Amino acid sequence: MRVDHIAIAVNSAEDALENYKKLLNVDKIEIEEVPNEMVKVVMINLQDTRIELLEPTSENSPISKFLKDRGEGIHHIAITADEIETDVNHALDKGIKFLGGLRTGSYGRKITFIHPKSLNGVLVELCQAPPQDDGQTLENKI
Amino acid sequence: MRVDHIAIAVNSAEDALENYKKLLNVDKIEIEEVPNEMVKVVMINLQDTRIELLEPTSENSPISKFLKDRGEGIHHIAITADEIETDVNHALDKGIKFLGGLRTGSYGRKITFIHPKSLNGVLVELCQAPPQDDGQTLENKI
Repeated sequence: MRVDHIAIAVNSAEDALENYKKLLNVDKIEIEEVPNEMVKVVMINLQDTRIELLEPTSENSPISKFLKDRGEGIHHIAITADEIETDVNHALDKGIKFLGGLRTGSYGRKITFIHPKSLNGVLVELCQAPPQDDGQTLENKI
Repeated sequence: MRVDHIAIAVNSAEDALENYKKLLNVDKIEIEEVPNEMVKVVMINLQDTRIELLEPTSENSPISKFLKDRGEGIHHIAITADEIETDVNHALDKGIKFLGGLRTGSYGRKITFIHPKSLNGVLVELCQAPPQDDGQTLENKI
């Protein structure tokens, strides 16, 4: 298992990117809007993981609510699962609470979320590892 | 640059470990007390990074204050720098605010922290990359 990305809720993804570029040696950045999730995403690719800057594009986005309640900061971390169905069933058996079932996330990968109460206040996304995971992110291989 | 670890403030590191073991395929765990920092640390080694569970061992620990103010959750993320002095100077020139200067952290590595105001609410630790960083954590090599 590896950390696929760290997602940070921000008021403006482009302003936040300018801040992160002051610190990070950034090789590759991708910007996309995800209408389903009501967010604009700036993805900063690091050596082995990604930082996702999430800006809400609607008042109804869960990211809007997060920003209103807590201000800017880390929203969730995503961890890869080699066999997501097996890992979800294993975790369910152990009493881990999920937020909704498996669904299709970006890049067509299966994802689900775990309730922060199950993991000491941390919202964790579990996502299917890319096939033949060699430590690169999926989009580096395409 | 890569993510060295994700640190999570918890009330009990051992109880939290039991929770994380329900989800994670954990190969290697290390437990240590760090009296200087007034914390007990459980380190969960994943494929390419670590999750650090931080339990305060004193009321005066900054982790105690964090738990009191915000409850359990992600406390900081640590990012490696290949040449930490260069990267710190570069970031200072760009207006990034640091919390104290460079000091020696665990495993004798130089570290410093960046003010969350500079990085959209995220507390970031910058730490010197192990020599000849090949994607393994330092302790995997020892």
